[in-house]
Amino acid sequence: MKYSQLLTKTIKSSKKFDSINATYLIKGGFIDQIMSGVYAFLPLGQKVLHKIETIIKEEMDVIGTELFLPSLSPKSFWEKTRRLESVDILMQAGGANEMSRAKNDGEYILNATHEDVITPIAMKFRESYKDFPFAVYQIQTKYRNEERPKSGLLRCREFRMKDLYSFHTSQEDLNSYYEKAKDAYSKVFARLGIGEDTVIALASGGDFTKEYSHEFQTKCETGEDTIFYDKKTKTAYNKEVTPSKAPIFMQKENKLRAIENVKGEGIIGVAELSKFLKIPIEATTKTILFEDDRGGVVAACVRGDYDVNEYKLKRVHKSKVLKLASEKTVKKVTGAQVGYAGPLNLPKDVKLYFDDSTQGRINFECGANKTNFHVINVNFGRDLKKPKEFVDIKTAKEGDCNPKSGEVYEVFKASEVGNIFPLNTKFTDAFGYKYIDNEGMKSDIYMGSYGIGSSRVMGVIVEKFHDDRGIIWPVQVAPFLAHLIVLGDEDGESLYKKLQQSGIDVLFDDRTNVSAGEKFADADLIGCPFRLVVSAKTKGKIEIKKRNEGDITLVSVQEAEDLLKRQVNV
Amino acid sequence: MKYSQLLTKTIKSSKKFDSINATYLIKGGFIDQIMSGVYAFLPLGQKVLHKIETIIKEEMDVIGTELFLPSLSPKSFWEKTRRLESVDILMQAGGANEMSRAKNDGEYILNATHEDVITPIAMKFRESYKDFPFAVYQIQTKYRNEERPKSGLLRCREFRMKDLYSFHTSQEDLNSYYEKAKDAYSKVFARLGIGEDTVIALASGGDFTKEYSHEFQTKCETGEDTIFYDKKTKTAYNKEVTPSKAPIFMQKENKLRAIENVKGEGIIGVAELSKFLKIPIEATTKTILFEDDRGGVVAACVRGDYDVNEYKLKRVHKSKVLKLASEKTVKKVTGAQVGYAGPLNLPKDVKLYFDDSTQGRINFECGANKTNFHVINVNFGRDLKKPKEFVDIKTAKEGDCNPKSGEVYEVFKASEVGNIFPLNTKFTDAFGYKYIDNEGMKSDIYMGSYGIGSSRVMGVIVEKFHDDRGIIWPVQVAPFLAHLIVLGDEDGESLYKKLQQSGIDVLFDDRTNVSAGEKFADADLIGCPFRLVVSAKTKGKIEIKKRNEGDITLVSVQEAEDLLKRQVNV
Repeated sequence: MKYSQLLTKTIKSSKKFDSINATYLIKGGFIDQIMSGVYAFLPLGQKVLHKIETIIKEEMDVIGTELFLPSLSPKSFWEKTRRLESVDILMQAGGANEMSRAKNDGEYILNATHEDVITPIAMKFRESYKDFPFAVYQIQTKYRNEERPKSGLLRCREFRMKDLYSFHTSQEDLNSYYEKAKDAYSKVFARLGIGEDTVIALASGGDFTKEYSHEFQTKCETGEDTIFYDKKTKTAYNKEVTPSKAPIFMQKENKLRAIENVKGEGIIGVAELSKFLKIPIEATTKTILFEDDRGGVVAACVRGDYDVNEYKLKRVHKSKVLKLASEKTVKKVTGAQVGYAGPLNLPKDVKLYFDDSTQGRINFECGANKTNFHVINVNFGRDLKKPKEFVDIKTAKEGDCNPKSGEVYEVFKASEVGNIFPLNTKFTDAFGYKYIDNEGMKSDIYMGSYGIGSSRVMGVIVEKFHDDRGIIWPVQVAPFLAHLIVLGDEDGESLYKKLQQSGIDVLFDDRTNVSAGEKFADADLIGCPFRLVVSAKTKGKIEIKKRNEGDITLVSVQEAEDLLKRQVNV
Repeated sequence: MKYSQLLTKTIKSSKKFDSINATYLIKGGFIDQIMSGVYAFLPLGQKVLHKIETIIKEEMDVIGTELFLPSLSPKSFWEKTRRLESVDILMQAGGANEMSRAKNDGEYILNATHEDVITPIAMKFRESYKDFPFAVYQIQTKYRNEERPKSGLLRCREFRMKDLYSFHTSQEDLNSYYEKAKDAYSKVFARLGIGEDTVIALASGGDFTKEYSHEFQTKCETGEDTIFYDKKTKTAYNKEVTPSKAPIFMQKENKLRAIENVKGEGIIGVAELSKFLKIPIEATTKTILFEDDRGGVVAACVRGDYDVNEYKLKRVHKSKVLKLASEKTVKKVTGAQVGYAGPLNLPKDVKLYFDDSTQGRINFECGANKTNFHVINVNFGRDLKKPKEFVDIKTAKEGDCNPKSGEVYEVFKASEVGNIFPLNTKFTDAFGYKYIDNEGMKSDIYMGSYGIGSSRVMGVIVEKFHDDRGIIWPVQVAPFLAHLIVLGDEDGESLYKKLQQSGIDVLFDDRTNVSAGEKFADADLIGCPFRLVVSAKTKGKIEIKKRNEGDITLVSVQEAEDLLKRQVNV
């Protein structure tokens, strides 16, 4: 393609957008922001998106059958799954003006995901055990009413996604397909050029399952997720669910001191408190009160340098719902304002959990259950019954180890590029979708859901592969394999045609009113893997340079062609 | 692909849906209706849609550059073009529940078309005369709040469309590109298998232009449009804009009779009136009153067997707006209730137009401008001034001729498969988008818009190519080239693999619990171009039958392969 056919021109301003991917993709002319969280894919961007989606499609065809579901669906579908009111990013569509609403005043859901749509369709066609398992997928636009869209293509209100759904007659069959899907996903990310740096991290399974879901996380300095990787067991966890054991807090003193109430009016945060009390943060204790869905109150204690992890606490407490205790409850239970709760002398019906990080300390601090007061020099066994077991209810931190393997985690930032989810019977139950087994009985159907945000992946690739001059596209997803620059009066047109005829996807900068420097800068910004330069200096040959290397080689046209052809079909 | 991978099964019921395409596409398992005007494309349907869109894409790549615009856009874009309130099928999107709206209460347009989106984007990148012309296109989902979705894929609230937009520095350049687009469209329809039966019909240019727009209309008995074709000038018109001259009404009598008021209480329709008065319908006259946007009243008279055509009347009257006169206006102007208007003794400021169909009659009827009364035996020259000119303000009927060529039209039903539209400066003016000419002056930008509804085309193909057993897909868009049926214990699996390896797209009916008759019926319903049957009877050979022919030929596997391979890449 010629530069003049691109619609866009690169943007020269030094303006930076809210992320690296937004900055380079907008300046390079790949995307244009239409409004917050909504982007147009301009010709360069459309080419990259199409390449990404083609790779995804080819690998998904191995494990499922493609279809194309509508973006609009009736509210009744979402009512059945009780998600109409509870999915907090759900959007709807209806007439935009009076005339339109007069013709039809219906309101429809603009699908954020398609479990609620595929389940009732599958029900129409597949009922016998002989019809199982099956899997279908689509590549489509999704809509989510994000509160704060951000980071360019990473969090959008309108975005592209591949979503696959599988249906099974048993948990075991779902599990076995689930492993196949993992393999297919790994192939996708390998082909997209991010395979080496993408790990499968365990994440929350949500309300659907006690098991984990699995996120494909790509190592990336600007990633919004934190991954804890255990080299020994080769297991990665999303921070939110990482099992963790705190390093022991080494105290010099070994003499128990007298317990003491200390007034600290208005002092609540642990940093402020440790300064005020002149003790290390590790000697302080955070006690957070929650209410469960059975009317009970839970007190969760972690060492001051940790945070309580609700996900873990729910599992330990075996409760699907936990919410921060109301001011009223806190007052009733502790007798104090919010901010002064502690484990001492709580009513007996309050369920008390101690994180392992609170273990092994002497003379520690905790809230006094008295407004403005803290207790210091608290000791298990003397002031407080030592709990039968210490549990893991903290959010993991760098330095923690995996309680099972004892291995200290490697911690890195990463960006999610895909996720797979055992939905089990959540959606099939909602629609009353059962299969008929070989004895004529109705039985549960197990479902899995598998997503890759294709436009998001485009953003992650840019976050990962760039330098200070622009994008460095992996060959497989580059908008063009080569960027041809012709300087002076050299004949670019015939070389361009020759390369095209050889099946080489080349972008020919056919501008005549632009300096060499500007053309080089644009080639670096756009980021095609190879730059070809023809000038009076090259005397019939071509200067070839890889985008991610400094070396420039002078080769014959034939050599350039051969080299580039070898890159095709990687 | 194997039948078992399709998700769907054919539906056996005798139920008929609202159109042939809906009936066969739903029963064959190509599509599933999610709600009124919204369909899911199931695996078979997705395959056909993908083939159609690939053909469109390949031809559009010759005349434009692909991009992908978002479905959501800000209301401000549509306000600029004054279409936010006036496009009566426009939809909008926003949060679907309280939690969602609390996070973001924005409302966005769900685009029905993208002129309002591409124009402000193009503005950002292309300003100099050197940047013109250019054309971009996308293949995307569109949303229209249709009052009554109908006819399966032909009129939907959510549908697929290819839309292309071109930008030019002059009307001439737009015209010349417009012809290129016509050629590209003709190639698309030829490759889709409907080229021979698709004509380019002139249609209304809407508010944008005094010229016609152009519709690609495919001959089809169930088509919703009526096309008038003039063989002499090789011009096709959509009924709504067909210039027409009525055949002369031959009257036996030649003596003028005395004018007479006849009471006919409550008799209004011309059929009823002609019966009541015992005169031919052709001797009656319809007089319809309109109000223009300049405060004037227009009386339009056509022969009783015709209807007044507002499109033509607007052009004759040189007014962009005409609306049926209100009851109040009718009463004021005629002195009578609605239904008794006539051309006699109207106030002088009422502009009176006579259609050519009213010419050459004697002793004709018209409304008496008196409630419940009709006048008969009216004659030009005696009772009514003969107009200086008779105009063409009627909707054409079969039997009419082209006033210019004198040729009687061939009339046929057709279904629209594409349209192209000279928008001229309508949208560029709205956004203040001008180009800088070679003297540094700002000048008008001319725009064209070019659409093909890809999902609609799928419906039209089925309306056109079917018999009473099912669909007969053209090779180019068939879901599979061949449908393989294996009877008894023959080995289908290895033949299926062999055909696949030869690059033949084959659907293998791998069901074992289904009768031969059912398999044959399903093959006819699904409509792949070739049916292959292997049974004990065929003794290692294959029975091959074209879907649209009765002959069955017994050939070797190699011969079948060769025959099928010749069909690929048609």
